[in-house]
Order: sequence, then structure tokens, then C-alpha cells
Amino acid sequence: MKLVCLQKNLQKGLNIAEKIVGKNTTLPILNNILLETQNGLLSISSTNLEIGINCRISAKIEKTGNITIPAKLFSGFVNNLPNDKIFLEVKNNNLSAKLLNYKATISGESADNFPIIPKITGEELFTINAAVFKNGLNQIICAASLAENRPEINGIFINIVKGKIIMAATDSFRLAEKTINFNKKTENNISFIIPIRGAQELSRILSEKNGEIDLVMNKNQILFSIKDNDIEEPRVDLVSRLIDGNFPDYKQLIPKDFKTKLIINKNDLFNAVKISSVFSGKINDVKFSIFGAKKEVDVAAKDFSAGENISKISGEITGDDLEVTFNYKYIIDGLNSLSGEKIFWGFNGPTQPALLRVLDDRDYFYIVMPIRNQ
Amino acid sequence: MKLVCLQKNLQKGLNIAEKIVGKNTTLPILNNILLETQNGLLSISSTNLEIGINCRISAKIEKTGNITIPAKLFSGFVNNLPNDKIFLEVKNNNLSAKLLNYKATISGESADNFPIIPKITGEELFTINAAVFKNGLNQIICAASLAENRPEINGIFINIVKGKIIMAATDSFRLAEKTINFNKKTENNISFIIPIRGAQELSRILSEKNGEIDLVMNKNQILFSIKDNDIEEPRVDLVSRLIDGNFPDYKQLIPKDFKTKLIINKNDLFNAVKISSVFSGKINDVKFSIFGAKKEVDVAAKDFSAGENISKISGEITGDDLEVTFNYKYIIDGLNSLSGEKIFWGFNGPTQPALLRVLDDRDYFYIVMPIRNQ
Repeated sequence: MKLVCLQKNLQKGLNIAEKIVGKNTTLPILNNILLETQNGLLSISSTNLEIGINCRISAKIEKTGNITIPAKLFSGFVNNLPNDKIFLEVKNNNLSAKLLNYKATISGESADNFPIIPKITGEELFTINAAVFKNGLNQIICAASLAENRPEINGIFINIVKGKIIMAATDSFRLAEKTINFNKKTENNISFIIPIRGAQELSRILSEKNGEIDLVMNKNQILFSIKDNDIEEPRVDLVSRLIDGNFPDYKQLIPKDFKTKLIINKNDLFNAVKISSVFSGKINDVKFSIFGAKKEVDVAAKDFSAGENISKISGEITGDDLEVTFNYKYIIDGLNSLSGEKIFWGFNGPTQPALLRVLDDRDYFYIVMPIRNQ
Repeated sequence: MKLVCLQKNLQKGLNIAEKIVGKNTTLPILNNILLETQNGLLSISSTNLEIGINCRISAKIEKTGNITIPAKLFSGFVNNLPNDKIFLEVKNNNLSAKLLNYKATISGESADNFPIIPKITGEELFTINAAVFKNGLNQIICAASLAENRPEINGIFINIVKGKIIMAATDSFRLAEKTINFNKKTENNISFIIPIRGAQELSRILSEKNGEIDLVMNKNQILFSIKDNDIEEPRVDLVSRLIDGNFPDYKQLIPKDFKTKLIINKNDLFNAVKISSVFSGKINDVKFSIFGAKKEVDVAAKDFSAGENISKISGEITGDDLEVTFNYKYIIDGLNSLSGEKIFWGFNGPTQPALLRVLDDRDYFYIVMPIRNQ
């Protein structure tokens, strides 16, 4: 392998690929990245056996070939270089790199020993704007379970049906659902679950991307192929295994009517919850008292040893007065996932799930379970 | 105690005072701050028994008094409030706080149980511009020892003599010295050592201050009294104990002549050292080879399992050619403490201390020991 590319392009590609590279002592080759020439481009790949990432950057190839080298070492070197032409060449399983007066030789290992990242081919299920998909993902990702003992909710559920992508996540205390409309009409009804780690990596990569995503899947894996509008930017593929399991049938849990309805300014509620969080006890309990006649919500917390607080905020209230207690962390997460000022909060008494959404947007909602009275 | 003050002033005062408040389980009152009315101001105090901080902010006092309350809880409450008038009142050893529709009651403890922060009175040793003092402190603080088994170097040495403040710090591998001229001519020769923790707190507080510092000391303690130019800003006193010990007699170690002299661009050297740091071994060794005839410095590192690198940078060299190895962290610290582009680096062979400074500034220097050849 012998090639020339620009330091800034190499740096971008490495920074995307190396994030999933950890410190793996049982399988040290997973600490490496795979460099290989591919159709006139330099391809950079990494894998943690659950997720695989591949970036292609522009390069002038003099001689095809490949090598694997320690990811952190190579990116540490490249990140500290100025932007100029970098010359890479493989000699005797070493990579030699040269840029202006900076030279390095890095001990590599044969590409034959690198785990194969599965190639997934076929017709794309959908093509979608990267920013739209990322925003949807970021809205629901907070509700996913981080516990590995229930793999079916340790991920993001995606259902593609009738020109819609429905994404959902739950940790059994709260549930978030986002609906995105897309152009391609499909008659099929396809569902799958992406592991949370893959969804987080995808969100991270998409945060710096403008363009479109093609999605292709087979029985066990899914491929997100990201085309950037700027052809100078690396083209990135992320392959993730899919979770083998059934996502809970959550549709039945979505409340349709509410005994108490509240329309309130998001920031007022957010500030009151933040203040009460300081006084809440070990179970993060914050109490909301809703008074229709006074058009007032009292947000309060009490820690017997430290003190107590109450904040009174105004809102439009219809239906029954109510006292209900929530884990403040779940409310903060829910409010952070809403991108509007006026929000709707619907309740069905102190023990039933409550629903939060932006007042004029029904494409996203966040359901949260109260803490039952002790 | 009963008073009104502005939330933003209270927040500033609390944020300064609470930084030294930790989680003390043996003496829980150290987790509290002391609030007390003082000459028409609200005084906020904290201590960890080594350092004491006192801030005074503007307040309208209705009734004098005092109380101690948990620092983190109170600042968590105040930090989340909007800026408006906050009403504070002590009732039955509780503090009640009210701002607009936000109310809290915080369980307190009698001020009688709070450790006394010593009052230090007397003539000030000097008055100095806060920014000048902070910049000097920040230049030398990196060289101080963090090890507590040698208390005499676990601090900042200050020597006041003939209208000069000389500050020095060492961890026995490197030494930094800064000289500041000030107006007041003193005939005395006064020296003392401030513990590193006190110096770090002082630097942190000064980073947001414009104004002057008065310094007053007695046998065991020192007081830094910070007057801000903006009278709306809290006035802050920091009291620290002094270290009882003798700072090493370092003057004899300062090289006066050099067998090899190098004048070099700081950024070129910094980048080359950063790159080599990636390849350096467990002892952080980076080798510098200085070639007078070629006007070149080669910065190189080698890790037998990972690879090696070399960067060639140009410089003005007089004297002997030299190969010398340093811990790259010490060189990075030294370069970060220099505020100029052209730097001077003087050497006396591969085993003697080398001296770094800005080419045209002799008020600050940084001496560093090489790593001896293995």
C-alpha cells in the first residue's frame, strides 16, 4: 500500500472510526484500525464485534494494499500534525507516515487477522435526511434502557410502515415515540431493534453530517450508509447487529384521554423541577400539585434532614385537581426531548402514566410513570 | 437574621465560597457555609481547616444574625433561581428563602459550632494588581510538588525583598521562578510557603477578579484580601495556613552559563513534543538531538512495541551539539508557562538541568532535569 492524502481528511476519518475502538485485552486486534485501498479511496475500518464503522476518504493511490495499526497511536500522531499532504506506505508490516518534516513508523499487523465487517447488500428500505433522522433518534434515545439483562429494550425499536418510520424506546419507567414521514411508500411492515450502543454511535456520527442516509438490512444486521452533501467529507457506513427479541407491545399503554390536562411553559416547569431536584430524597421524588381553579402547579420536594422547597407556576388546567409524584430525572429528560415552548402534559390520576408533548406537535410524545405514594 | 439581596450577587459569593467545601464525614459542619450579617453586608464563609474563604456581598439587612447551612444544597437552590430579589430569614435554626414564587426552607445549625476562621490584622506586606499576581502564580504552579510527604515543596515559596516579589515552586524534577516588581519598597526580607491547595484556590478566585490584592501575614497564616474594581462584585478574603519548613536553597542550581544555546519557535517545539509524546514509552521519554551546523533539532521517541517517530525543526544554535532526553510532560508544562513566541533553551550536557525562558524576558524561567541515559 502506498498513497498520499490530506491530513485533515485522514483526521476526520480516523476520528469517526476510532470512537468504537476500546482497550480490548482478550482480542488485541480490536484495538487496531484497518487501512486499505478501495476503488481509488483510502478505507478506514474499525469494529467492536457489535458495531462496525467504515469511512472512505479521497487519496491518490500509488500502490494498492492494506494493514492494521493501533488506532489511538495513529490518530494521536495524525491529530497533532498540521494540514498538508501525508504520505503513507506499508513496508514489512509497518506503516511509515511522512508529512513535511514529521516522520513516523508504526508497527502493524496483517489485515488477514482483522475481523470481517459484514457486507450488507440489497435494496434500501428507505433514504432519509440525516438531520431529521438524528433529531428523531436524539429525542427518544434518553428513554432506552441501559440494563443489559433485558436486551429487547436495551435498544431502539424501529417500525417502517406505510411511508412512516416510527421509532420508540423504553426502560419500563418511561417511553418515547417519534414518527417521521418519508417519501418512499412501502407496503411492507418491517420492525427491528438496534442496540443502544449502535444508535448512540450513529447519533454521534450524524451530528457532523449533512446529507442523506440509506438504510439496508438483512436478517441479523443493519447498514446505515451516510452520504454527505460535501464530497470532501468522508463517506461513512455503520453496520450494527440487530437485537433478537420482541419489543414490548407498548401501543396499548398510550393514554388516549386524560382526566387532567395541563398546558404550561416549558422553561417555567424545567426551572421549578431543577430547583426541587436539589431538595428531593434518595428516590428523586418531586411532587406536582395541580389546582385548576387557581390555574397553578406547585412543584415541591422535601428531604427530612436537609429542608424543603415549593415553586408555584401558572398553567392552563382542565379536568380534575391532582397530586402526583415523579422521579425528577425522568421529567428533566422528557422536557429536554421537547423542542417547543408551550407543552401539553396529560394525566390520569396519581398512579397512571402521564404524557408529555409539545402542544402543537403530535409526532413525538414521552410517557412517564409516577412514583406511587409511599 | 433577616435580609434581602440580589440572586446574582448571592450566587457569585456562594460559588466562590463553596469550592473548598467537600464531603466531610468526620466533621459534618465543614460541609456547611456560615452566613452572617456584617457591617451592613451579608458575609459568606467556608473553611476546610487549612484554607478559609470569606465573601461579602451587598444586602439590605433588616435584622442582624447568623446561621450555618449545607453549602451544596443552598448553592444548588440559588444557582437555579432567576436573578431577582431574594429574601432570607432565620427562624428556629432554619433558613427560609423566598424569590418570586420560589420558596425553600433549609435546615441549619448554630453558627456557634462553626470553626473560627482566624482574623489576621496588621500592616499589609504589599498591595499588588490581582491580574499580575495571578499570572505569576499560574506560571509557576505547574512545577510545585503534589506529594504530601515533602510538605516544604508541596507549596509556593514567596520571598519579598527590595521591592520585588519572587515566587518559586519545585517538585525536584523541575523548578519555576517568577519575579514581580511592586511599588512599595520594603527593607525587610520576608519568606514563606503557601500550601499548593491555597495557591490553587487563590488562582481560581483571581481568574474572575479585576482589582488589587492586599497581603497581610502573621507567624502561621496569610491573608489575601481581594478588592474588586467593580463594587458590585463580592469582596473576598482568603486565609491560608503557612507551611512550616524550609524551601530548598535553589539559587545555587540556576545555571548561569550554557554549553549549548537554542533559540526556537515555541509552537514548532510544542507540536513536535506533542507528536513524540504519542510514541514515548512508560517514562514519557522524548529525545532532543541538537545539530549546530544543520541549525536543526530532531525531536524523537520510540516505543519498541508500537513504533517510532522523528520531527525535524529549525532553530538558532550556538555551542556544542547535544543529545538529551526529557520527560515530555515537563517540557509541555514548561512551554505552556511561557507567554512569548521566541524562546531560549539553554543546556549543559545530557545530565545537567536545562533552562527555558522567553527570549526577551528574564523575569520568569523554568528549569528541568533531563532523564539520564538508561
